[in-house]
Amino acid sequence: MKALEEKIQKEGQVYPGNVLKVGSFVNHQIDVPFMCECGKEFYNEFKDAGVNKVLTIEASGIAIAALTAQYFNCPMVFAKKSKTSNIADNVLFATVKSYTHNCVNQIMVEKQFVNPGDKVLIVDDFLAMGEALNGLIKIVEDAGAEVVGAGIIIEKAFQEGGAALREKGYKIHSLARVQSMDAETGKIEFVD
Amino acid sequence: MKALEEKIQKEGQVYPGNVLKVGSFVNHQIDVPFMCECGKEFYNEFKDAGVNKVLTIEASGIAIAALTAQYFNCPMVFAKKSKTSNIADNVLFATVKSYTHNCVNQIMVEKQFVNPGDKVLIVDDFLAMGEALNGLIKIVEDAGAEVVGAGIIIEKAFQEGGAALREKGYKIHSLARVQSMDAETGKIEFVD
Repeated sequence: MKALEEKIQKEGQVYPGNVLKVGSFVNHQIDVPFMCECGKEFYNEFKDAGVNKVLTIEASGIAIAALTAQYFNCPMVFAKKSKTSNIADNVLFATVKSYTHNCVNQIMVEKQFVNPGDKVLIVDDFLAMGEALNGLIKIVEDAGAEVVGAGIIIEKAFQEGGAALREKGYKIHSLARVQSMDAETGKIEFVD
Repeated sequence: MKALEEKIQKEGQVYPGNVLKVGSFVNHQIDVPFMCECGKEFYNEFKDAGVNKVLTIEASGIAIAALTAQYFNCPMVFAKKSKTSNIADNVLFATVKSYTHNCVNQIMVEKQFVNPGDKVLIVDDFLAMGEALNGLIKIVEDAGAEVVGAGIIIEKAFQEGGAALREKGYKIHSLARVQSMDAETGKIEFVD
């Protein structure tokens, strides 16, 4: 998505440790009209897949997931993070490592909100090592539901998450795929 | 909003300690088409107020705030929670007590995202004691911006937050105002 690449070039900030900050339009301030366009892109890509639920993870996936779900006219569910492993009977859970925050979270979804037969589109802001996405996939499949694919705003294509998931057969649609970025020069290059 | 009151009656669950669970459509699973209708209600109420920014607080305010902001064709900003009081120069912050979770959070917004002259509509899922709303108002006013009002999905009108804020002159538009609720019988009554 050309407009997204331009926006990342203009507003994104690269920090050491492969950190790309897009707080001005993706995950602190949200450029809602622009994110609606991203949601429409996801809809165009997955509109024939029978999606009846959109799933994301708190907090920064929620806005884009909600805006996307409206085009599918379906509910959105977000997995909640918890530092505790205090797991109840009525929840689906997964363990997710955050490389950005250097911690491990349990993520959980109440069982009643993902059901066998559901066709779930996972939406998230970033894909890098694939930790969050793998956790969300586990939750959907543990519920006996189907992952129809994932819509990602920004994929760090130089990290292995996306490749590994495509290898397994998941359809991953990333609107911008960063090939490389340099904290010293601020230069960001995209996959062609 | 009659449809919201009916939905709360049907899907809401009352627990001891004045807890009203609406996880099936407001804050775990989000009924996105329905929340779009709520967003339109906020738009109708505040469309002549010059709103150029919607502000909320993570995590459960984000979906409704994003869906609302699209009708104003403006960005949305969400305040982040932090247990630490490690406050940097470039952030606006407030201290917010959570009665539900029995803890105190610092909430913060980067200064660059709320500016003097901004006309800010605050959107949140619940209003009870008014702690979160007061914190968000402090952030807006510390930035030299203006609070044009607040759009709330569910107000617990038997708690004092809404009354105190209206007393101070803030325009609070709550789509459902709970008069009373009973954990034993499950009965929920609304303000006429």
